[in-house]
Amino acid sequence: MANHGCVDWQFSGSDAAKEAAAASLGTYTSEIFSLCDPQGKPILPSLTEEAETSNTAEKAVVKAVLCGTGNAYAPSIGLPVAKRAVAEYLNRDLHNKLTGDDVFMTVGCKQAIELAVKILAKPNANILLPRPGFPWDIVQSIYKNLEVRRYEFIPERNFEIDLDSVREMADENTFAIFIINPHNPNGNYYTEAHLKQVATLARELGIMVISDEVYRWTVFGSNPFVPMGKFSSIVPVVTVGSISKGWIVPGWRTGWLALHDLDGVFRSTKVLKAAKEYLEINSKPPTVIQAAIPTILEKTPKDFFDKRQSFLKNQVDFAYSKLKHIPTLTCYMKPDACTFLWTKLDPLHFVDIKDDHEFCRKLAKEENLVVLPGIAFGQKNWLRHSIDMETPKLEDAFKRLKSFCESHIKI
Amino acid sequence: MANHGCVDWQFSGSDAAKEAAAASLGTYTSEIFSLCDPQGKPILPSLTEEAETSNTAEKAVVKAVLCGTGNAYAPSIGLPVAKRAVAEYLNRDLHNKLTGDDVFMTVGCKQAIELAVKILAKPNANILLPRPGFPWDIVQSIYKNLEVRRYEFIPERNFEIDLDSVREMADENTFAIFIINPHNPNGNYYTEAHLKQVATLARELGIMVISDEVYRWTVFGSNPFVPMGKFSSIVPVVTVGSISKGWIVPGWRTGWLALHDLDGVFRSTKVLKAAKEYLEINSKPPTVIQAAIPTILEKTPKDFFDKRQSFLKNQVDFAYSKLKHIPTLTCYMKPDACTFLWTKLDPLHFVDIKDDHEFCRKLAKEENLVVLPGIAFGQKNWLRHSIDMETPKLEDAFKRLKSFCESHIKI
Repeated sequence: MANHGCVDWQFSGSDAAKEAAAASLGTYTSEIFSLCDPQGKPILPSLTEEAETSNTAEKAVVKAVLCGTGNAYAPSIGLPVAKRAVAEYLNRDLHNKLTGDDVFMTVGCKQAIELAVKILAKPNANILLPRPGFPWDIVQSIYKNLEVRRYEFIPERNFEIDLDSVREMADENTFAIFIINPHNPNGNYYTEAHLKQVATLARELGIMVISDEVYRWTVFGSNPFVPMGKFSSIVPVVTVGSISKGWIVPGWRTGWLALHDLDGVFRSTKVLKAAKEYLEINSKPPTVIQAAIPTILEKTPKDFFDKRQSFLKNQVDFAYSKLKHIPTLTCYMKPDACTFLWTKLDPLHFVDIKDDHEFCRKLAKEENLVVLPGIAFGQKNWLRHSIDMETPKLEDAFKRLKSFCESHIKI
Repeated sequence: MANHGCVDWQFSGSDAAKEAAAASLGTYTSEIFSLCDPQGKPILPSLTEEAETSNTAEKAVVKAVLCGTGNAYAPSIGLPVAKRAVAEYLNRDLHNKLTGDDVFMTVGCKQAIELAVKILAKPNANILLPRPGFPWDIVQSIYKNLEVRRYEFIPERNFEIDLDSVREMADENTFAIFIINPHNPNGNYYTEAHLKQVATLARELGIMVISDEVYRWTVFGSNPFVPMGKFSSIVPVVTVGSISKGWIVPGWRTGWLALHDLDGVFRSTKVLKAAKEYLEINSKPPTVIQAAIPTILEKTPKDFFDKRQSFLKNQVDFAYSKLKHIPTLTCYMKPDACTFLWTKLDPLHFVDIKDDHEFCRKLAKEENLVVLPGIAFGQKNWLRHSIDMETPKLEDAFKRLKSFCESHIKI
């Protein structure tokens, strides 16, 4: 309580969000960017030069704005046309078809992840999350006092999920395994055979699979992308996604959660009901973007994604080749998906760098280059490098990285 | 736990949001609308024919879409240009000026209200809320196990806040009084003198004032609208608002929270810090609308609001005159603001209606007319009637209401 003049104010800020906020990717990102010198050489990656979205998506939103079809409140579970369009889009790859009733519109993929965890969390329950993994799950989980158990990957097997570690850590209080496919930051995506193993193991354990498929439009490996929903005849599956990564519009804040039911299990276990209740009292995605979702999903030409994937593949190849000249960082796998390289850092190679966080802080200060520390993804002493920039900038970024490593290396 | 085939699934939906969802305005609204017959006479108010927003706002968003200025993530506290524009807009009426740093962008006014409560809530703390009042505050408060105390109004004094009741119910664990100005559903707004009384009392009690001013653009009384921020030299003030009501675009989901500081008290009591931490881990408003906020706030012609206010005043006059022929409903005050009439219902006048909720359910079933029950605003046996429709529809609505009341009245 602070005393101002003669007043003893009876309020003060809550500490409840402190820990979760400190662990968020946004907090790490802002901190590293803030260490760059705006007067120095150009900051990389540039925050102002993002790739363009598709004309189809732009026109769809413009139409919704000018026709006023997205000006009113939408139902809390989402605009019916948007829900239906997402179901139809996902059905392209599925035998067990979804209807609009199985889909809930959310504020980006982030709220979908949050929703998936919140509607299932119970006292003493635990959830299996990937290490490394996009940290929203952790953040919200810590915040809600849910027990989080972290499963590992097998680098030698293209970063497949270590199913033995999953089996070992699951117990009678585990309710779900959360997978990220394509995986950020590992940069791989799973084969049909591996996903079937995951589904079969989950069924054996009596848990559901929650699959974050937000990067499904940025794959450039030789296999086709297989959605987890394909295995909903084995195990109940929840998929979450959004237009953020595929259409390069995270600022449009529109995503979804889809329930791939198995014999009505989501209804009988009240998961469907809980999802509706949570959405009723939580923030809603903009109706004006929801109104554009049918056109965005149905009409965006394949060419838009082909070009994007081909660009990303080139940049990955280029960056990966440059990385070979930086022996202090180890990249176990050239990515087949997403927009990053994921490298292992050994602090023993350096004179004055004790861990990934210090590496990134010093790199930002000395080179105006932003790389994110593995700790932001729950895995210490790894680094996530963006490759989503034009070649001259990418070349510059890896030159700066090399020069930085050389100037701090132990001789 | 459900058993499907041989599997004993280890998950089930959480009940945590059940109570809060049931008490939400959205749940009441959907329920009443769902009782209407889509094959019957036109449902009123019509969900598809809303008033148009300003061309300026439409063009500003179209420009943001086409220029791609709102495609990327915004900082969690909001886009700097939007924060600055809100501060400058609010400063028009203020002596103690805000800067962009005092403003946080939110997912509509709803998330701003939620934020104001969450950043202050502590175990054993209580907050003073209006009865009746927009229910989001309650919903979230119940959900967070915060003690809510409800202050009353004085109908005989134009629904001014009953300051004696406020003084009585405040104690050493009270941290804030929440006011709604203009008040939905009462339909009034407070004089400068009354707001000063509120500020002085709050200072005396050592609590802050949180003021919901989302309806500030729909006033049509003879006094000017006075924002609570004007009294931030007396007491710390938090104002919340959005473009939803003034620009008729709730589907754009963009609002704000502004901290009107008194001698740095929000910094020293860590309120500023808590706001940042909560926003870091919560949903964000669409960047694409935030990017348009400066133009929307600065460039929308006064004429747009003048026309809207004049329209609403006419509709209120018309509806109020019709209400005189429905003696079973009492309207204590012809509104000076917002888009509703607020009437008292006495179930003793009716043969087969036990309360406001039953009144609204039967009215929807029999007349395809949607009126919301007072219980949705925390006050039983009152009714909220929308007047925001063209005159022929408004006439039809009040004819149906009259006919319904006559057919259920005790003779």
